[in-house]
Amino acid sequence: MKLERVLIVDPIKGEFTGDIEINNKIISKVTLKGYNDYKYIVMPGFVDVHTHGQKGINVMNASNKDFKIWAENNFAYGVTSFFPSTVSASKEQILNVLMNSKDVGLSIEGIHLEGPFINLEKKGAQNPEYIRNPTIQEIEEIINEQVKLITMAPEIDNFYDVIDYLKEKRVVISLGHSSGGFEHFKRAFQSGVNRITHFSNALTPLHHRNIGGTGSALYLDFYLEMICDGIHLSPEFVDLTYKIKGPDKIILITDSFEGAALEDGYYTLGGLEVTVRDRKAFLADGTIASSTLVFNEGVKNFKSFTNCSLQELAKVSSYNALRNLYIFNKGRIETGYIANLVVLNNNLDLVQTIFEGKRVY
Amino acid sequence: MKLERVLIVDPIKGEFTGDIEINNKIISKVTLKGYNDYKYIVMPGFVDVHTHGQKGINVMNASNKDFKIWAENNFAYGVTSFFPSTVSASKEQILNVLMNSKDVGLSIEGIHLEGPFINLEKKGAQNPEYIRNPTIQEIEEIINEQVKLITMAPEIDNFYDVIDYLKEKRVVISLGHSSGGFEHFKRAFQSGVNRITHFSNALTPLHHRNIGGTGSALYLDFYLEMICDGIHLSPEFVDLTYKIKGPDKIILITDSFEGAALEDGYYTLGGLEVTVRDRKAFLADGTIASSTLVFNEGVKNFKSFTNCSLQELAKVSSYNALRNLYIFNKGRIETGYIANLVVLNNNLDLVQTIFEGKRVY
Repeated sequence: MKLERVLIVDPIKGEFTGDIEINNKIISKVTLKGYNDYKYIVMPGFVDVHTHGQKGINVMNASNKDFKIWAENNFAYGVTSFFPSTVSASKEQILNVLMNSKDVGLSIEGIHLEGPFINLEKKGAQNPEYIRNPTIQEIEEIINEQVKLITMAPEIDNFYDVIDYLKEKRVVISLGHSSGGFEHFKRAFQSGVNRITHFSNALTPLHHRNIGGTGSALYLDFYLEMICDGIHLSPEFVDLTYKIKGPDKIILITDSFEGAALEDGYYTLGGLEVTVRDRKAFLADGTIASSTLVFNEGVKNFKSFTNCSLQELAKVSSYNALRNLYIFNKGRIETGYIANLVVLNNNLDLVQTIFEGKRVY
Repeated sequence: MKLERVLIVDPIKGEFTGDIEINNKIISKVTLKGYNDYKYIVMPGFVDVHTHGQKGINVMNASNKDFKIWAENNFAYGVTSFFPSTVSASKEQILNVLMNSKDVGLSIEGIHLEGPFINLEKKGAQNPEYIRNPTIQEIEEIINEQVKLITMAPEIDNFYDVIDYLKEKRVVISLGHSSGGFEHFKRAFQSGVNRITHFSNALTPLHHRNIGGTGSALYLDFYLEMICDGIHLSPEFVDLTYKIKGPDKIILITDSFEGAALEDGYYTLGGLEVTVRDRKAFLADGTIASSTLVFNEGVKNFKSFTNCSLQELAKVSSYNALRNLYIFNKGRIETGYIANLVVLNNNLDLVQTIFEGKRVY
């Protein structure tokens, strides 16, 4: 396969016009041609490290076939790598998700456990019934090679009892759903944790006498997940964060649930009832619950909120997420990398998705 | 007078060793000498644009002689320009302060009116009895050539009725004691207001769905007053703000009151009772009330919180405040400037203060 006369957007080499050749699953040649015109933009395929479901599929009760369908549906939004994300649940329910999502392949790279080891005070739309402190025993029982990422609150009991085990297993720890202050985030950062879940939702605010989870995320060199649906975070909040952190530490996510890409209506999330109205998902008490965002819309939103460059957009939509999770053979348009690509028009609408060298959308 | 073999710290030209010659009130010559050693650091004299009193003197009932004593006392803290700052009070009380502080000369450059046109919801340690909305009539009656700065909340009624008059009179408007959100701060900024009072005390917090007064101050190109006593703002908050805003937009202030530079005990502020314990001043309900900070301590604190350069320290301790208030003949160590200087040792302890070419401390 050859993509000719395109604007190539690589997160490291930047933006240039040229041709891309693909052989089997691999980018075999990237040629800078200096064309003065192009019709399409080609970027690395999008990566969603935090998503609970989509189009009627709920991660917590999805069958093996559902996971496949989810991955196929996700090509329509440019997603070529994603991490189905559990919510707080019993050990049995979590093990069930791991079993059902095993060996799906396609664009599923692993599982993100969002909870249950979080702070009840910052439960957000997580079911309080299942929130608990970790024990090394339960961690050992749950964690297998599918689990790549776990969201935990740094201030809960036993946090420091389990993080060494998790690091040894190469499970990346992300801080979130936390009531912790600067002292907690600083200690976790100094212990090697470098990531924050859906900044700054479900974190303590920046206060002038304790900069909190929000201030710590800005102050220390954390990677930050961000939901750019225009609902969870105001455009100015996203732009301010981009101005402070720069393009190298932001990771776009959808945090979507089964109601995403469907009509307004009534759905469930981790056993809680969720209403979707005007594309906004919320619990009965008004708490924002997950999102109805699809990935390529979040990418367009980030561009319009920040006016960032396309190179920077490639970083926040794929490269940063992959590097943070030790994935080194994807996320660039360069010889030798896996050919996961999106083809966009100048309005950043998705025109084509290429997964492992094959057109899939 | 000649200062020889010193480290000269100019906010624009930076740090270099050399000699300074003073003739009458003016710096007549600055010579770069490239000495390899020096005993003292010379910086522009400090500027405090926000102070309600000190050493038993309370701005609201100070006599003309008290203002003189205040200015003389302030030399011991390196302050060579300051702006006695009123609190919310009746028109008569404010006019009284203006009358008593008239023609004091020395380092008193003008008056800062902190209130009464602020938001009752964010009164801080201001007396609620006197907080009200501005009218063009009252503004005209109060404002004279002594008033250089006024703190107002942008969301209160009639704000936009009076700001043109204030701008015409060259009274700088500072936003503070405000419940306003991004929409209010943005509109005020677009109307030419470029300054925030004691960031981020008595402002709405940074929230991810409305960045508030705190977020607006960080997001838009405002000057920010900051109280660096280690009590009003945590060291990390100061450092984070410095990292975000840089050294060109921060203005150190004391916000001190009559209990500053005195023992712990019981004092008053704008008719409210204030307790000072362990140098922390607070109202009966625990609200932090003003400060007991003296200026040169705030300067040392800022340096230790941020590890900024001495050149940057000269910006935040004098240059930025002066430029913001249209004072162009002070704040630099350069031929032709007024010779207001502080001489410090390497620990930044004050060794000497020079005011208009004369040693005053």
